[in-house]
Amino acid sequence: MDSKRLEAFTDGVVAIIITIMVLELKVPDGSSLRDLAASLPLLLAYVLSFINVGLYWNNHHHLYQLNPRIDGRVLWANLFLLFWLSLVPFVIRWLDDSDYSIGATAAYGIVLGMAAIGYFLTERAIIACNGKSSELSEALGMDWKGWGTLGLYAIAIPAAFYSRWIAILLYVTVIALWVIPDRRFARAVENRTADRQR
Amino acid sequence: MDSKRLEAFTDGVVAIIITIMVLELKVPDGSSLRDLAASLPLLLAYVLSFINVGLYWNNHHHLYQLNPRIDGRVLWANLFLLFWLSLVPFVIRWLDDSDYSIGATAAYGIVLGMAAIGYFLTERAIIACNGKSSELSEALGMDWKGWGTLGLYAIAIPAAFYSRWIAILLYVTVIALWVIPDRRFARAVENRTADRQR
Amino acid sequence: MDSKRLEAFTDGVVAIIITIMVLELKVPDGSSLRDLAASLPLLLAYVLSFINVGLYWNNHHHLYQLNPRIDGRVLWANLFLLFWLSLVPFVIRWLDDSDYSIGATAAYGIVLGMAAIGYFLTERAIIACNGKSSELSEALGMDWKGWGTLGLYAIAIPAAFYSRWIAILLYVTVIALWVIPDRRFARAVENRTADRQR
Amino acid sequence: MDSKRLEAFTDGVVAIIITIMVLELKVPDGSSLRDLAASLPLLLAYVLSFINVGLYWNNHHHLYQLNPRIDGRVLWANLFLLFWLSLVPFVIRWLDDSDYSIGATAAYGIVLGMAAIGYFLTERAIIACNGKSSELSEALGMDWKGWGTLGLYAIAIPAAFYSRWIAILLYVTVIALWVIPDRRFARAVENRTADRQR
Repeated sequence: MDSKRLEAFTDGVVAIIITIMVLELKVPDGSSLRDLAASLPLLLAYVLSFINVGLYWNNHHHLYQLNPRIDGRVLWANLFLLFWLSLVPFVIRWLDDSDYSIGATAAYGIVLGMAAIGYFLTERAIIACNGKSSELSEALGMDWKGWGTLGLYAIAIPAAFYSRWIAILLYVTVIALWVIPDRRFARAVENRTADRQR
Repeated sequence: MDSKRLEAFTDGVVAIIITIMVLELKVPDGSSLRDLAASLPLLLAYVLSFINVGLYWNNHHHLYQLNPRIDGRVLWANLFLLFWLSLVPFVIRWLDDSDYSIGATAAYGIVLGMAAIGYFLTERAIIACNGKSSELSEALGMDWKGWGTLGLYAIAIPAAFYSRWIAILLYVTVIALWVIPDRRFARAVENRTADRQR
Repeated sequence: MDSKRLEAFTDGVVAIIITIMVLELKVPDGSSLRDLAASLPLLLAYVLSFINVGLYWNNHHHLYQLNPRIDGRVLWANLFLLFWLSLVPFVIRWLDDSDYSIGATAAYGIVLGMAAIGYFLTERAIIACNGKSSELSEALGMDWKGWGTLGLYAIAIPAAFYSRWIAILLYVTVIALWVIPDRRFARAVENRTADRQR
Repeated sequence: MDSKRLEAFTDGVVAIIITIMVLELKVPDGSSLRDLAASLPLLLAYVLSFINVGLYWNNHHHLYQLNPRIDGRVLWANLFLLFWLSLVPFVIRWLDDSDYSIGATAAYGIVLGMAAIGYFLTERAIIACNGKSSELSEALGMDWKGWGTLGLYAIAIPAAFYSRWIAILLYVTVIALWVIPDRRFARAVENRTADRQR
């Protein structure tokens, strides 16, 4: 099975998710720029979600950069990831409607945590399909980043019931973890090129 | 006529349908995770529809995997399929607004049943264009799966007026029928590869 | 300039237009299939618009099938066409809100008529860029179909103020005109193939 | 890293932005074409935004026409641009809800000004990645157009508090600046072709 169509479909879905989030944002009630300030918390949630979804797009791109073989399991793991990403606009709307309530803040962590699991499953499914000694498997190594993400969400969700700020801080920490450029895949591509030139 | 642009257009439409469904979901009234429970029936309808549309995307992919020739008839059968899929978000909204009413439950079956007919017509149109002895025709065989799907929807729609649960059970049965991996097309691709190597 | 990216962008915009129309449809007030009957007029407007937009996608495909050169003028004519097509969901919503009022029925004709002009301008811009003796120019010939479409809309818009039914009948006539397969481009492609084989 | 997937993703996001703007437009209250006149100011904002987003798509296309190398910085600058473009539908809705209030008119300039900065940053990031003596760098030259755009928005935003008409006039001026065909990239492509033929 060809991974190109899966990539294109994922890009399409991600492009739509990242764009329709804006339809969920409520415009300010008033007519001055000061009224926009009241919308700031929601705009920040929008910014964070934009970066989060953008990161998934970016990482997804890395995952398929080595042109792995894919099978039905990869396809379903990928759809599982897209399913949870598609719920991001839904949680943003709830955050807005309930004024950053505890429930909505925890739900935000659940949705992003499940998306992280989806990403993790996609990774594993690709490795299972291409063999443990494949380039992707070696490039990922122990995948501290993946496990760290899952761990942070596992702490953040119950923490939201104690303090929403701790949860939000942990959500931002996950973003920081991923925004730092990941050299693993670039190195794998370089290795491959070097191997070929030998 | 080239099937690539038809595939890309179909992928685009399906990506949008699968993503805008979330715009139809109403957020919980309250602000705790418990309030989310009230949204569960609708979230389950969302999950089922996501899988259903995902299955169509997957199968559509199989249908064009053997690079068949296409003509105007294939194009219109394909648009007919997309038309009914595009109504899925509409029925989900109705299901939500009418609290899983009998009418909306039956309408869900009608929309998916018509989409199944659209898929069936697309299949037939491709076979008509490529000849009865074509690889696709042989790969499909008697197409028990296609006929079975149509039969299940034909039973589920009137059944909704007797009991909505029977209808929903039948909708889930159709999904189960298609989630089980289909080896027909993979086999056809393998046969082709084997033929070439001879 | 390469026409591939213009085609892909157009496909994307058309796929979104054809799909978001459904977000404008109001679900039935009641909960039985009979209540769906009240939505029938709007569903028919949806069907007609779906076919109309589908026809534009199909014809656009034909227009670029001969791989013409394109320039800035083609690009803007194409955007002009997309602009008017993007207003179709807007008019459908107005048709719904105003119960098929005279104004909305006339506006529907204006939007589709302007889209027809946009298609016409795109055609002319491509011919201007590729020369009067180009294959596309010869394939189009006198373009009775294009002129006929413009003429029918020119009659339908004022007719809506006299009788909405006459306007709707004329809108359907335009669709009938285009659904009938157009052999002009297929013939041009065949001629080209024949020329090459000589 | 390949620029093709970045281009396709950008095209997808832009296609969605340009199309969902229409979902924000309110339909006329009445049922006659005269009632449509009350919607004219908003329709004009829609037209201007359509042209603006269309121009970004067009220029983005030029930026990548010379097939530059890209890196993580280009990717993030590009996402920054898309983020601000994605807020255009949001500001249009606010313009509508607040009847072209001073705040919303200024916000429109802020969003488009930030998008202009995003475009500028993308340009610089590509040059940084491809070298100062690269074709793109030479094609851009001093980039009077880019600086002029930023300057015009810097004047327009405070001007909105004095007179909204001056701000709107300046927004239209920016469009005029970019609608005039830009020969820089076409010339660079011609130079390259000429160099190869030598």
